[in-house]
Amino acid sequence: MFSMRNNRLIKQSVNRLQTIGRHLSQDMAPVQINKKYDYLVVGGGSGGVASARRAASYGASVLLIEANYGRMGGTCVNVGCVPKKVMWYTGDLAEKRHRLKSYGLSESDGEVKYGDFNWSMLKEKRDAYVRRLNGIYERNLKKEGVDYVYGYAQFLNSDGDVEVTLSGDQEIPFVEKDKVFKQNEKFIFTGEKTLMATGGQAIIPPSVEGSELGLTSDGFFELEKQPRSVAVIGAGYIGVELSGIFRALGSDTSLVIRGDTVLRSFDESIQHSITDHYVNKLGVNVIKQSGVTKVEKLGDGKKKVHLKDGSSIEVDELIWTVGRKSLVNVGLDKVGVKLNEKGQIDADDYQQTSNPKIYSLGDVIGKIELTPVAIAAGRKLSNRLFSGKKEFENDHLDYSNVPSVIFSHPEAGSIGLSSAEAEKKYGKDQIKVYKSTFNAMYYAMMDSDDLKSPTSYKIVCAGKDEKVVGLHIVGDSSAEILQGFGVAIKMGATKKDFDNCVAIHPTSAEELVTMT
Amino acid sequence: MFSMRNNRLIKQSVNRLQTIGRHLSQDMAPVQINKKYDYLVVGGGSGGVASARRAASYGASVLLIEANYGRMGGTCVNVGCVPKKVMWYTGDLAEKRHRLKSYGLSESDGEVKYGDFNWSMLKEKRDAYVRRLNGIYERNLKKEGVDYVYGYAQFLNSDGDVEVTLSGDQEIPFVEKDKVFKQNEKFIFTGEKTLMATGGQAIIPPSVEGSELGLTSDGFFELEKQPRSVAVIGAGYIGVELSGIFRALGSDTSLVIRGDTVLRSFDESIQHSITDHYVNKLGVNVIKQSGVTKVEKLGDGKKKVHLKDGSSIEVDELIWTVGRKSLVNVGLDKVGVKLNEKGQIDADDYQQTSNPKIYSLGDVIGKIELTPVAIAAGRKLSNRLFSGKKEFENDHLDYSNVPSVIFSHPEAGSIGLSSAEAEKKYGKDQIKVYKSTFNAMYYAMMDSDDLKSPTSYKIVCAGKDEKVVGLHIVGDSSAEILQGFGVAIKMGATKKDFDNCVAIHPTSAEELVTMT
Repeated sequence: MFSMRNNRLIKQSVNRLQTIGRHLSQDMAPVQINKKYDYLVVGGGSGGVASARRAASYGASVLLIEANYGRMGGTCVNVGCVPKKVMWYTGDLAEKRHRLKSYGLSESDGEVKYGDFNWSMLKEKRDAYVRRLNGIYERNLKKEGVDYVYGYAQFLNSDGDVEVTLSGDQEIPFVEKDKVFKQNEKFIFTGEKTLMATGGQAIIPPSVEGSELGLTSDGFFELEKQPRSVAVIGAGYIGVELSGIFRALGSDTSLVIRGDTVLRSFDESIQHSITDHYVNKLGVNVIKQSGVTKVEKLGDGKKKVHLKDGSSIEVDELIWTVGRKSLVNVGLDKVGVKLNEKGQIDADDYQQTSNPKIYSLGDVIGKIELTPVAIAAGRKLSNRLFSGKKEFENDHLDYSNVPSVIFSHPEAGSIGLSSAEAEKKYGKDQIKVYKSTFNAMYYAMMDSDDLKSPTSYKIVCAGKDEKVVGLHIVGDSSAEILQGFGVAIKMGATKKDFDNCVAIHPTSAEELVTMT
Repeated sequence: MFSMRNNRLIKQSVNRLQTIGRHLSQDMAPVQINKKYDYLVVGGGSGGVASARRAASYGASVLLIEANYGRMGGTCVNVGCVPKKVMWYTGDLAEKRHRLKSYGLSESDGEVKYGDFNWSMLKEKRDAYVRRLNGIYERNLKKEGVDYVYGYAQFLNSDGDVEVTLSGDQEIPFVEKDKVFKQNEKFIFTGEKTLMATGGQAIIPPSVEGSELGLTSDGFFELEKQPRSVAVIGAGYIGVELSGIFRALGSDTSLVIRGDTVLRSFDESIQHSITDHYVNKLGVNVIKQSGVTKVEKLGDGKKKVHLKDGSSIEVDELIWTVGRKSLVNVGLDKVGVKLNEKGQIDADDYQQTSNPKIYSLGDVIGKIELTPVAIAAGRKLSNRLFSGKKEFENDHLDYSNVPSVIFSHPEAGSIGLSSAEAEKKYGKDQIKVYKSTFNAMYYAMMDSDDLKSPTSYKIVCAGKDEKVVGLHIVGDSSAEILQGFGVAIKMGATKKDFDNCVAIHPTSAEELVTMT
């Protein structure tokens, strides 16, 4: 694709690698690649890939550097949304199995107990699916003409030079065709502009003794075998999702939370609906006002989890879902990219960092850690930087009213302000809240109340014209329901606009356009 | 509630009935009730009940007359949306049972075969549920202060006098307390304004020999036993829904249609997606370009259905879903209410009939035969007629961009113009169509392609600003997905407004805000 002065050097490296092996190769001198890219993208997750492809679509020369060898797609595809949703579907189907009898479709109770579910079979399928997606991501990059390499990036200087240490053996056809370069070989790439889209990583609290005996969500996806008992630590959406899946699949599940409710960053209606349902219907052992003080490994491989009040639980697996940190170990000091107090990259609404040639987006900036946010920000950034079109010269993502959902059991979703936030922003007398809690028709056939799952909707309106400033829903299909309402709210919908649309009967969503 | 001069007469009637029985009572003289209601509502379906309650909420005196003895709620509750959706849930769960194995939640194939499903048990539950709803409808009327009576209404004259022949024994506390009036007793009620909301009824084609051997959708809901084999006649949404349910529950199902596709009044994308799926995946025996010429009863109780091409099929049950007619047999000639050429009541956008004191809405006017349309029209009419509020003096339902859905397998939904209609209205060069067909993630785990169900989305945009004038979707959760988009489209959404909302990942609905 472009001429190379370093061909000979690369060949030598390859030969050396083949004879002396990987270990020594770490000392090898990096190969300077004699091409200046328009756009270096560090991180092949949702945001990086989207921005790279969009830039290339405008003719920019783009190199994308992904550390996770062979696993293009980042957190979402590999250890996030995608495999999580597959597991959520599994849990949801497990719950449906328990409801077959009520509908006359089974004579047995159908509740999924530990041992009923073939975890390893599904994991294999799920992994294969993720691999297929990895391949699709690669092919899409190729189709769009984006160069990519698997390796660890380090900024060398403020000129935009990035050293890449290969994270696995690979062909790099844009460096040299029909050649396999070896893990740990180093290259130096240069870019006119650079995007930092390195994402984040789940954390294990270092201050807790024995914490390393627990897994993170990454480890959850590696489990070859369903734990009979599990403790999930943390009240955030990941903890709620994972504990919901485990419970639906018959694991004895504890969820250890600091306060009295889960999902503390969401509206109280979501907090209470989900907490109540987990405790009273799903049978998750929610341990409130608690925390882990120490973890011990027992003789049988179990973990003894010591809790704040002096009690303890013994579980097969312990999973930390206590937060994520930004992946910033790429020599940002060399390029003067500043971090905020949380260790996240500081980027403005235009994804601009403190270095004018370096942009950043996605989980690494910690603004709204959602795949579609990273994708939208990445595409808009490339529109602005590379399209040359006047219509895009100010293009950037508006971070307000971004819908987000929780794949709990049942699902929940949220847009905009909680009622507490709305009262704070507009004043209590300016806020009108519409609420409705009901049983979806599906549950009318259930043989027992324990088989029913709640639906709870809340619309937060502000001002005389009752502009919808918050929407918070719990119930089946919430994730699907929310998208269209998201469009309407982004358009500035009022309660009257909601009511102007004729209801769709019988659905749950119709309640949202008929609330009084 | 109000004084009555006819107390004595009524008492006599009751006594007579008790001694001489029902038959003779038909000759009894009607009792003129000495109260003029502000609003007589003929028909206790969705529209009538909604309009009656709303009128009463403004202080109007309201009498509602429902023919179907004890079964308040009309078609929707008794033989429409409600029991249909329960059956759809059943079919949907049956399909889910078949997918448990792919998710590692069952070792058996799980396909629901004839005999697997306990039809009579579910019917009993479903009936009980409908009865509960009947009771809720009655209680809601009472709460709002609406008088109601079960009987057949006949207009007597243009003064608004309506004769009601009781359709069953009942207490009529607003006529006389603690008294049971007998079936066939007659009363004359008078109203200042009258609403005709009598609805419609499924038809059996009279011209086909033996057609009476078949059932309508009403008969479907009466079936005590699942037919092993069934022929459904008609390509409309009811035929598609019923045949989908039968097939999902393991009946050998034929669907006889006139053309090549089902759902001919919907966008071609819906027609083709559903027809293809029914034929190729569900295994419905769709008999195209056909029709029924004759029906015979066989010795074993089966029906032999002769088809247009000379062939025939033998089935346990035959179900006609070939159309519905308006219920107008209430002496409309006496009050000068005109019908259109389809035999439906002619009502304008304000629900006004050709008699200035008589209004009409719901299925009987045949405009858009949907429960929420009747409800919205009924409420708005009462707002206009009885609220006395300036803001409502022009209130009426806008019949454009009403969302409607089909509970097929998978579901489908539609708002606004098909692409063909849009091209006709705006000109082909003014129309831009966005289409996407994909497999929802749920199906990524399926062991065979036969277990996959399609998702197909189409956005029809018009003009330079790409205003969304049509949305047509097929796929799981379509009914729930459509509601929010309905709000946005009613607000005048453009394609850009769709795209402005950040996607919700991973969902199917997100495709609607990311299509290119």
